[in-house]
Amino acid sequence: MKSDRPVSPSVISRLPRYYRLLGRLREQSVTRVSSRELSEMMKSTASQIRQDLNCFGGFGQQGYGYNVELLREQIASILGLGHAVPAILVGAGNLGRTIANQVDFSGSGFRLVAAFDRQPGIVGTRIGETQVMDISRLEEVCRAKQPKMAVICVPRQAAGSLAGRLIDLGIQGFWNFSSYDLSVEHENVAVVNMHLWDSLMTLSYYMSHREESPGAGE
Amino acid sequence: MKSDRPVSPSVISRLPRYYRLLGRLREQSVTRVSSRELSEMMKSTASQIRQDLNCFGGFGQQGYGYNVELLREQIASILGLGHAVPAILVGAGNLGRTIANQVDFSGSGFRLVAAFDRQPGIVGTRIGETQVMDISRLEEVCRAKQPKMAVICVPRQAAGSLAGRLIDLGIQGFWNFSSYDLSVEHENVAVVNMHLWDSLMTLSYYMSHREESPGAGE
Repeated sequence: MKSDRPVSPSVISRLPRYYRLLGRLREQSVTRVSSRELSEMMKSTASQIRQDLNCFGGFGQQGYGYNVELLREQIASILGLGHAVPAILVGAGNLGRTIANQVDFSGSGFRLVAAFDRQPGIVGTRIGETQVMDISRLEEVCRAKQPKMAVICVPRQAAGSLAGRLIDLGIQGFWNFSSYDLSVEHENVAVVNMHLWDSLMTLSYYMSHREESPGAGE
Repeated sequence: MKSDRPVSPSVISRLPRYYRLLGRLREQSVTRVSSRELSEMMKSTASQIRQDLNCFGGFGQQGYGYNVELLREQIASILGLGHAVPAILVGAGNLGRTIANQVDFSGSGFRLVAAFDRQPGIVGTRIGETQVMDISRLEEVCRAKQPKMAVICVPRQAAGSLAGRLIDLGIQGFWNFSSYDLSVEHENVAVVNMHLWDSLMTLSYYMSHREESPGAGE
């Protein structure tokens, strides 16, 4: 279904939202949706919607719209949500623990296979069905469980050397909550940074310059 | 110092990173930096750096580079970091509590003046110097403390009606951790969404299509 053209980051960043909206339509037993209806939900134009979905081969039919279930499944497949890629959490303090409990790994293409920390008070505690292990066991456990993704919830100072160690152990993707700019140092892995501080400063900017930003979602 | 042209969202999204990098240079007692050096740190081109900073009036001198301290102060001013805008946290469960403890509000242009929840076990507990209040006191407290920003850490189902109520109370900016698409419904406020699930799905996409994303930071 994929076309061979590279897909722009802005299209990719909208895919999860399409997926969520289609999930809600499905919950409401809606079976069919037009690009105009989707565009209202996405606060976009119908032509933008058609363009976005055309990047992946185009699923709509003129005058009929999109089949909600089919489109949702196809976007899930494009996002790789069926993959169950083994993932580890590194840093199981408050932030790591909260993230791990908040997100639905299995609904996002991952499964959490291990969690690590260096603090004696945290090692041995449980996060869902996972028991937090001492970081000294990282190599041993990664060899056994072959994780491909790591959620990084350690302080910035620790993140740089940790990333190199994880890449050596076969990690190909990082969900990075440290304020360390992972993508800068390591070119051959996928990185999605969640810099809390940056995002709060961005809000400060938009609030200081409100005329530039009528509802500046990101 | 500002020019009158609107600044593009991608430039704005890079400003916090400039600010962080300049902070680190300052910690290392570096007083001057060239656009080439900045470009290496930002993984960008020197011409991009000059273009970005020119959006705000241009602070560099040909052949001299940028004064680290001055540039940092000017970016802080552009970001509005000196403002101490009063902010509230709505939803003080694990996620809200973790966010409030992780981020440096005062270093980001805000100060936390109140926190709210509806759960009896959470109401009355403390987050730093703030005591969590029952959400029924929202109107009363907002009239007294005049907050302008709200951190939203409630479930999606609660976020929509809450946002309207907060806008009526004078909230002009949202830092939204619920999976509700705030920006879609309310056009006259600044919104920065932190959709954890979307970001994890985006990572899934990049890991499924790694050839498209050599270090796809966001």
